Amino acid sequence: MPQPPIRIAISGALGRMGRQMADAVRADARLALAGCFHRPGSVGDGLVSGDEAIAMADVVVDFTTPAASAELARLCAGRGGPALVIGSTGFEPAEMATIAHAAKTIAIVRSGSFSLGLNMLVGLVEQAARALDPDDWDAEIFEAHHRHKIDAPSGTALMLGQAVAGGREIGLETVARRVRDGVTGARPAGEIGFAVARGGAIIGEHSVSFCTEGETVTLAHSAGDRIMFARGAIAAALWVAGRAPGEYDMRDVLGFGAA
Amino acid sequence: MPQPPIRIAISGALGRMGRQMADAVRADARLALAGCFHRPGSVGDGLVSGDEAIAMADVVVDFTTPAASAELARLCAGRGGPALVIGSTGFEPAEMATIAHAAKTIAIVRSGSFSLGLNMLVGLVEQAARALDPDDWDAEIFEAHHRHKIDAPSGTALMLGQAVAGGREIGLETVARRVRDGVTGARPAGEIGFAVARGGAIIGEHSVSFCTEGETVTLAHSAGDRIMFARGAIAAALWVAGRAPGEYDMRDVLGFGAA
Amino acid sequence: MPQPPIRIAISGALGRMGRQMADAVRADARLALAGCFHRPGSVGDGLVSGDEAIAMADVVVDFTTPAASAELARLCAGRGGPALVIGSTGFEPAEMATIAHAAKTIAIVRSGSFSLGLNMLVGLVEQAARALDPDDWDAEIFEAHHRHKIDAPSGTALMLGQAVAGGREIGLETVARRVRDGVTGARPAGEIGFAVARGGAIIGEHSVSFCTEGETVTLAHSAGDRIMFARGAIAAALWVAGRAPGEYDMRDVLGFGAA
Amino acid sequence: MPQPPIRIAISGALGRMGRQMADAVRADARLALAGCFHRPGSVGDGLVSGDEAIAMADVVVDFTTPAASAELARLCAGRGGPALVIGSTGFEPAEMATIAHAAKTIAIVRSGSFSLGLNMLVGLVEQAARALDPDDWDAEIFEAHHRHKIDAPSGTALMLGQAVAGGREIGLETVARRVRDGVTGARPAGEIGFAVARGGAIIGEHSVSFCTEGETVTLAHSAGDRIMFARGAIAAALWVAGRAPGEYDMRDVLGFGAA
Repeated sequence: MPQPPIRIAISGALGRMGRQMADAVRADARLALAGCFHRPGSVGDGLVSGDEAIAMADVVVDFTTPAASAELARLCAGRGGPALVIGSTGFEPAEMATIAHAAKTIAIVRSGSFSLGLNMLVGLVEQAARALDPDDWDAEIFEAHHRHKIDAPSGTALMLGQAVAGGREIGLETVARRVRDGVTGARPAGEIGFAVARGGAIIGEHSVSFCTEGETVTLAHSAGDRIMFARGAIAAALWVAGRAPGEYDMRDVLGFGAA
Repeated sequence: MPQPPIRIAISGALGRMGRQMADAVRADARLALAGCFHRPGSVGDGLVSGDEAIAMADVVVDFTTPAASAELARLCAGRGGPALVIGSTGFEPAEMATIAHAAKTIAIVRSGSFSLGLNMLVGLVEQAARALDPDDWDAEIFEAHHRHKIDAPSGTALMLGQAVAGGREIGLETVARRVRDGVTGARPAGEIGFAVARGGAIIGEHSVSFCTEGETVTLAHSAGDRIMFARGAIAAALWVAGRAPGEYDMRDVLGFGAA
Repeated sequence: MPQPPIRIAISGALGRMGRQMADAVRADARLALAGCFHRPGSVGDGLVSGDEAIAMADVVVDFTTPAASAELARLCAGRGGPALVIGSTGFEPAEMATIAHAAKTIAIVRSGSFSLGLNMLVGLVEQAARALDPDDWDAEIFEAHHRHKIDAPSGTALMLGQAVAGGREIGLETVARRVRDGVTGARPAGEIGFAVARGGAIIGEHSVSFCTEGETVTLAHSAGDRIMFARGAIAAALWVAGRAPGEYDMRDVLGFGAA
Repeated sequence: MPQPPIRIAISGALGRMGRQMADAVRADARLALAGCFHRPGSVGDGLVSGDEAIAMADVVVDFTTPAASAELARLCAGRGGPALVIGSTGFEPAEMATIAHAAKTIAIVRSGSFSLGLNMLVGLVEQAARALDPDDWDAEIFEAHHRHKIDAPSGTALMLGQAVAGGREIGLETVARRVRDGVTGARPAGEIGFAVARGGAIIGEHSVSFCTEGETVTLAHSAGDRIMFARGAIAAALWVAGRAPGEYDMRDVLGFGAA
């Protein structure tokens, strides 16, 4: 008993993520491409209008700008649907409020990173940190990226550090150890250490190790291709279709919401 | 406001685990050693009697035999305490029933392996398997042990396989791929693969990888010293002291019980 | 004092490797593209003729067929140059003889895999195996590839096994342990173990571990992108330009020839 | 055709390494324990005198002090044997000269660390660094140790950095990057990066990665037990017995001397 495909409209279809999303939707038998548009209200560029695409869709996947995403949320909520997957970043409070208001009428998944693996890693790390006594288990975070990256530690490494600190109910800034060089003294209990490597074209390696006498647990993620973001957005679209109104994130998509 | 130490009695004090437990209790300021005995009812060997030790203890930690552990549970329940941590293995149904009955009156933590790290790994792996679509995410288990180990895959690797299968709500035996050699064909979706290394004096390495296009999540454990078992039993004793009656396992001690 | 660029002609310019090579040459300031052709003797397809390209080149890089490569070697040797980098595979003895004869007049690097990293790994593994007593140090090889790979262990894993066996001056087939499942007994000294994982889109991971009591040495390679083959062929071209006549392989390019 | 065992005398038999050495010699069928003594010239402590032990030995293994080692070398050379394995550290130039002079008459292996694996790793890393263009291949060193270690990076990590720098014929201090934190800018070619983790009871993990576009080579060592040092000293004793006079190190024992 094959189900009818879920109809996806792509907002921001001219951007890199928009194009990857369109390809991913076309390649997935569970999905149908309802239409591609540039911005809500736009016409042209060989794309359909936003109104047409929205009218045909079960879910709109949107990688645009905060302003365009907020406008899209308002538009979809005003029509009573479709559901939304929003990947834009950098929202102002007013735009957040518009989206929150729309989420009273429609289901919206919003995330700054759609990698299923990284979102899962963050959830598992937080749980592990909550379960393991910080006086006994030392948390150490390692990340490696390509030679062109200009800052350290990576934003994802810091997010993993926040997950450890959150699980321990402390602030990361009070326990982060970002550098070890020279005479450091013995490691204080509770510290969260960071180590950084840079080289070649590494897309992104992250690991969090919890070490105690006699054993170590390591939770790690390796990124091989940016296609992971499109695949995660597809998973979010499949999950949100037909869902009750509300604001969701990738932890909900993974079923980690109640953790 | 220092709390008074929790008083621990050691049952099976002549065995390897019993001796390690006694050392670990002596080294831990949160604990006091209430007494060491061989078996419930035994007298001699320079140890106190079981009755004396039990009378002085908040928790009895017991690494003996199924019969001795069942007798100890009956005894402690009959007195309304102390709580129990049981590490014996190979119970018969009648012994299990005795322990279950005792657990109506006292709190009992029972486990076949007290490694906190491995128990946590199993819990995290099950959650990851539940969250990730098995059609998209391939699960692969790797283990390495010392050259003297005579079977493969390790019991822990199979337990991790069970955790993946459990999270996916299938039976491991229907999807386990224990060997790949020669012309294997492409990997079927849903398969759970095992890979084995043997060498040197490796105490135990285990990892579970979930691989999809563009990303891999790896959850791993490395054992460095058998002291991890004594440390986990200590954590169980600290957790069970003063706990409500019931049968518990290490997932409860880790706070993963409701997962 | 900038040197004039080395002029590279591409043979097999219509194939995948040929196109990648042309891109890589254009992107490298140390090189100039002398011309692209299909096969020695061919004309058309918008390419120059083989004769023209060869006349302009210091080095011809050739990814074609054994027959075309042998003909090209004969042609270049007949003119007294240019040097050759040959990446075709599957040569018959007669074709090998033609190339060996040409190598009396010109320098030829021939390899079945131009990855610098993998060729180096093979050289290091062989040395390690020669230095470490096989009665004390257990060699274990691990490889992981994408879910579409249909055989196991990978050809590269077997090549690494050959390197271990070569360093120990035994035949791989007498000591290879390709499967461990069930009751295996203790690991015999001298065995070379293989372990295999399959999942996602992994391009290729290989490692060789030497394990003894108290320590383990691991030599590993991770492939992230097929561009590594073009980059290795470029390194071969830079190395072979102006070199004395002879047949060389990637070990020579790496300076490992005398090991 | 069993060979007669090589007779080993232990100098510094009351120290930790001396006791481990005696145990290791007793457990090894290729060796016989010729006698244990405290210092050359000492008598008592239930040990034989140095003179007696030396007279009975093919090789003396010595973990004492620079002064005692130099005196021992003089003594053995004056008798025309036995050979020496010296593990003392912190020699003054005059003591070095005494040993060098003795080495004209007897064979002496001297090393600051007898781990076979680490010595091999250093040799392989230097070769890899020499073979790989530093403009293309980024070298990154990672080390992890227990929470009690008070300095960073570890001495072994710095030795591995020296091996990379030596292979590239530059000075480590000009290219070492010991810290990355905040806005670092893109990674300069030629840099040698260090990353450090501290946690639990990790005895010592070291790795050197060479990363370029499309591939990474990683050479790694994991220490599990200090027994590795005794085992390496045994290997040195087996190697030096009957060897021509000269000063040797562990690279020679591994057969890497000519590299």
